[in-house]
Amino acid sequence: MKKTLAKGLPGILLFALLFAGFLAADEGMWLFNMAPKDLLQKKYGFAANDEWLTHLRLSSVRFGGASASFVSPDGLVLTNHHVGQGAIQNLSSKERDLMKTGFYARTRQEELKCSGVEIWVLQEIIDVTGPVTGAVKPGMGTVEAAEAIDKAVAAMEKEESERTGLKCAVVNLYSGGLFHLYRYKVLSDVRLVFAVEYGIAFFGGDPDNFTYPRYDLDVSLFRVYENGQPLKTPHYLKWSPKGVKEGELVFCSGNPGSTGRLLTLGQLELLRDTSYPFTISNLRRRQALLHEYSKKGAEEARIALRNLFGIENSLKAVTGYQSGLLDKALMENKARDEQALREAVRKDAALEAEFGKAWDEIAAAQKSYASFFKPYSFLERNQGFNTVYYGPARTLVRLAQERTKPNAERLREYRDASLASVQRSLLSPSPIYDEFEIVKLTDSLAQLKDELGSLQEIKWLFGGRTPQEVARELVTGTRLKDIEVRKSYLEGGWEAICRSEDTMIKLALLVDPVSRGLRSRYEKEVEAAEIKNGALIARALFKLKGTSIPPDATSTLRLSFGVAKGYVEGGRKIPFTTTFTGLYDKSAKNGNKPPYELPPSFTAKKSALNASVPLNFVATCDSIGGNSGSPVVNRKAEFVGALFDGNIQCLPTRFVYEDTVSRSVMVDSRGIIEALLKIYDAKPLVDEILGRK
Amino acid sequence: MKKTLAKGLPGILLFALLFAGFLAADEGMWLFNMAPKDLLQKKYGFAANDEWLTHLRLSSVRFGGASASFVSPDGLVLTNHHVGQGAIQNLSSKERDLMKTGFYARTRQEELKCSGVEIWVLQEIIDVTGPVTGAVKPGMGTVEAAEAIDKAVAAMEKEESERTGLKCAVVNLYSGGLFHLYRYKVLSDVRLVFAVEYGIAFFGGDPDNFTYPRYDLDVSLFRVYENGQPLKTPHYLKWSPKGVKEGELVFCSGNPGSTGRLLTLGQLELLRDTSYPFTISNLRRRQALLHEYSKKGAEEARIALRNLFGIENSLKAVTGYQSGLLDKALMENKARDEQALREAVRKDAALEAEFGKAWDEIAAAQKSYASFFKPYSFLERNQGFNTVYYGPARTLVRLAQERTKPNAERLREYRDASLASVQRSLLSPSPIYDEFEIVKLTDSLAQLKDELGSLQEIKWLFGGRTPQEVARELVTGTRLKDIEVRKSYLEGGWEAICRSEDTMIKLALLVDPVSRGLRSRYEKEVEAAEIKNGALIARALFKLKGTSIPPDATSTLRLSFGVAKGYVEGGRKIPFTTTFTGLYDKSAKNGNKPPYELPPSFTAKKSALNASVPLNFVATCDSIGGNSGSPVVNRKAEFVGALFDGNIQCLPTRFVYEDTVSRSVMVDSRGIIEALLKIYDAKPLVDEILGRK
Repeated sequence: MKKTLAKGLPGILLFALLFAGFLAADEGMWLFNMAPKDLLQKKYGFAANDEWLTHLRLSSVRFGGASASFVSPDGLVLTNHHVGQGAIQNLSSKERDLMKTGFYARTRQEELKCSGVEIWVLQEIIDVTGPVTGAVKPGMGTVEAAEAIDKAVAAMEKEESERTGLKCAVVNLYSGGLFHLYRYKVLSDVRLVFAVEYGIAFFGGDPDNFTYPRYDLDVSLFRVYENGQPLKTPHYLKWSPKGVKEGELVFCSGNPGSTGRLLTLGQLELLRDTSYPFTISNLRRRQALLHEYSKKGAEEARIALRNLFGIENSLKAVTGYQSGLLDKALMENKARDEQALREAVRKDAALEAEFGKAWDEIAAAQKSYASFFKPYSFLERNQGFNTVYYGPARTLVRLAQERTKPNAERLREYRDASLASVQRSLLSPSPIYDEFEIVKLTDSLAQLKDELGSLQEIKWLFGGRTPQEVARELVTGTRLKDIEVRKSYLEGGWEAICRSEDTMIKLALLVDPVSRGLRSRYEKEVEAAEIKNGALIARALFKLKGTSIPPDATSTLRLSFGVAKGYVEGGRKIPFTTTFTGLYDKSAKNGNKPPYELPPSFTAKKSALNASVPLNFVATCDSIGGNSGSPVVNRKAEFVGALFDGNIQCLPTRFVYEDTVSRSVMVDSRGIIEALLKIYDAKPLVDEILGRK
Repeated sequence: MKKTLAKGLPGILLFALLFAGFLAADEGMWLFNMAPKDLLQKKYGFAANDEWLTHLRLSSVRFGGASASFVSPDGLVLTNHHVGQGAIQNLSSKERDLMKTGFYARTRQEELKCSGVEIWVLQEIIDVTGPVTGAVKPGMGTVEAAEAIDKAVAAMEKEESERTGLKCAVVNLYSGGLFHLYRYKVLSDVRLVFAVEYGIAFFGGDPDNFTYPRYDLDVSLFRVYENGQPLKTPHYLKWSPKGVKEGELVFCSGNPGSTGRLLTLGQLELLRDTSYPFTISNLRRRQALLHEYSKKGAEEARIALRNLFGIENSLKAVTGYQSGLLDKALMENKARDEQALREAVRKDAALEAEFGKAWDEIAAAQKSYASFFKPYSFLERNQGFNTVYYGPARTLVRLAQERTKPNAERLREYRDASLASVQRSLLSPSPIYDEFEIVKLTDSLAQLKDELGSLQEIKWLFGGRTPQEVARELVTGTRLKDIEVRKSYLEGGWEAICRSEDTMIKLALLVDPVSRGLRSRYEKEVEAAEIKNGALIARALFKLKGTSIPPDATSTLRLSFGVAKGYVEGGRKIPFTTTFTGLYDKSAKNGNKPPYELPPSFTAKKSALNASVPLNFVATCDSIGGNSGSPVVNRKAEFVGALFDGNIQCLPTRFVYEDTVSRSVMVDSRGIIEALLKIYDAKPLVDEILGRK
């Protein structure tokens, strides 16, 4: 894998040539409050002024764990179909399968309320590194220091949330090098306005996922309401009338989930040797199970689909990440970079005294993590209990206990600042199919038994019975499907939990102590060392290079940039856009069979379409999972597309950015309008989007 | 069962004739701060002045759950051998069995430190009824009111304990009619000075237990140290030089555990129909098991003895209580008394409105209690886990959780005011014999499986295995025998518990939630109704009769009185004292075989004894379990004996006092001195006791 080097960058970055891997070309998921203004000015002659940045930030939203943007002054939000998929499926049933038919609310009255969906708008960012790290006092040990930071964060989040009425979250950047307070407005009245059919949203299915050229209309539209009325907002993205041109500078504003570019070698090795192999084999096992289940019938296939998409998507993503780590050249570069940084530290006695041990301590923490990675994954991360019942059961059990503790003493997901969201998600109905749950749970219990069968709790759980017997008993003995039942546990607190005879609650109670023990090991033996030493490494970096290197992704709003351009793959030039013509061709070439089967709307309205309109395009802007649904805009902050994927070469950029062949993939704004008008007959929606009414 | 009526009592009690059963002759376990001064003056011409009362109170101590007294200015404490038995057994081993050989420390250096023994001296009593009941606000429901009282009590105990440095406990009297704050000095450096052999302490064994005539030298002596020195106290009981005469007024000052004279019919029926039958059959089962185990060999018999005494003692006691409840005449009297009181209430519209429903509400609560009595007993009261490992395991698990809560939110036994005692008891070593534990646990698990086998947790625990397999796994998988291990859990808190792989800790974790659920049901469905309505009935009684009726026993210090006198049984006159002559005769008559086998000291020194010296005597003073070890004194507050038992007729006085045949049984002060001098060659000890040095 060839890497381009930073060029034409300001003085401080010249030093970075020492650490060749650290910043390349259009690399970077930048903080909105530390945007690369100079870089953009010098490289692209673009002045990213504060007004521009603020408008883009307030027009961008967080949608579930992913991204979206306001595209009208009346609270219309555009995201990917696959980002809105959970909500769309929750509104579906055997009789009315919106995944299959698509949906369009021609009037506001027809818009469908989505339960459990939250949209967060980032109102403000404040640097709180001083107050947070100030909680660490001289002489504190690693764990004590991590706990002090954790408590300071908890206190700040609680106080800020209460004071401002906004959701306030402290974001840990550079592994503890910086702490920023994010204040979000949380909007929870979200209604479905428009969804395409799954067949066109995910045209090409799993085989084409993470590939390019691509022909997906991966789009859905929602509307945010406030006090029963559509949200009025001055901050929305105007639609670019002309779309994007080849070579044009574009920006992507979204919530990349997690990258590992600043991870130490020790951390990368843990991922490569322990975490990813486990995850990949686990996902494969689940994929096979769901394929098997899908074969039972159409309804079973519909039910399995919900899980299948996520599993196959993750499988491809993680396999791609792992391919990076298995790439010797990449790892050698990583080693060389780390060595160079350590060498620079070692040359200065003061730096060596301060930072010298950080890498080894992180490596030791990884060794410890590897020793309990499996039980931690199976129990604390719920891998052993693959059923939608277990999550709520455990949340109810933990919430009831945690609520009785002072805010700062709680597991962090149950602190006051998060309680409203936790409760909303607990009380959001979604269809549950018990036979499907039994199948999934049976399989994961079998795995659990194989892997952790010697654990006392697991022995008790099985007691000589088969995984299937246990799974059936657990699923048929729970009433957590009923939202009213969940509510009664929420209201009844720990006492209601103690009195419960619900099998899933009992299971969660059985597992909770050992699971909490693993959680505590993780926090003390791994996380605390990462926080302490990650911060040290970050400070070493700052000293040597300033903050010219953006922090790794943290599921929070970032700005990336790049140019719309094609690339060469296997000697073949891949153009930067695709068109509807390509879509029809590819479908025909594959006999219009799944996953290349066009929905009836697309076959019926084919002649109405201008087939040369661009459907998807690629650009070099930096992205990763979580960026799905991110608005992509031009210099005028006009919407030119919605990011929905990366090509396969993009996956290893989790660890090292490169822009020769890796690309983000977008739905083209022009294709969206063309389809809305010609295929879906959605002129009022287009008028709203284009500001024509 | 004939009852004598109150006679010659002051005006207000005349009214009591309506309620014939409420107070009889020398009835009463009186509060030291509400002593029956007038009654004593009128009936016995005795002026119980405050100085006398204070001296007796401060000379009396609480020893474990029972009673004792200071008998020298140097902290010497006299109690029953069976009260000190736990401490004596803890100091014993296969090689040095103090139970068998007895013990005498001829010098202070030889005194043996007892771990886990606490002596409490009641410093002060304060009426806090106002502040406690003031926590109940108008409009509060039954449970809410009980919780408000509970929290007020918790807050007061914590605050008072912290402020005074004393152990402060609020005592609930008359089922919530009055609340008194007791301030105790807690002394925990307690050393064994003298113990007789088990054979003479419990001469006649289980067959003679709760009978009279009796020949037991049920005595042991301890010394309390403070700051490494023997405690100096002006409050100790002088020894009566002449002992007690027939017909003489005597007083008993001790900690009766629990009586049920003011219980409603509903509560008595619960005991008769649910609680006692369960307890009796359970105790019988355990008795049989221990007898079986004892047959395996001498060492097994020694080990079993420790449990056997308590079991047989309880069995006889509870069987005796139950005999009262099964006595139709007694229950008819109870019904008549309750009817009379309810009638008196009903005649007055205001009283009826205030108190009318109290009895029925208590009865309803008992019905509810009966419905979960078994799981409550097996799980929350540990009956299903008959092993000394389970108690500490559960305490560790609960303590770790409860400590993270605010004081008033905790289960009451884990509040700050009790924490020091709880921890001391956890860290007191006592010998544990695993094979014995497996035998006991196996049996109780078998019972648990039979009774609660359908409960999810119990299914999990067994998982198709036999009780013996499970018991063996649990006992061999725990390290709680090691006090250092317990300490590490205490220090490690909830996290250490969560990380534990100790089988007993895991068992406690498995059972705890369901057990807590039952506890909560008990507190809300039973106890709250009893507190509310018990207090109402008490207030009705106060209105109609003042506080001329003492409250039921509450394991706190009480004063009772009566006369030393014999009685007639089956037409035979039973004299009020027995002598050493009787002891030797009875032993000979029974071939000197257990339980009538005399220890070697008594056979060897027989000729040295003055065999006509009184050994035991009886009196009419009111007592019940918990009074064991109580000093019995004359008008001058001089020690004339130590209460150690009641005759069999005494047992139903748990519910109705009577004095024609029921008697408390004491070791005579003269017999103690005679044995110490002639049998045990303990002149220095006698000199100390008699103040001769």
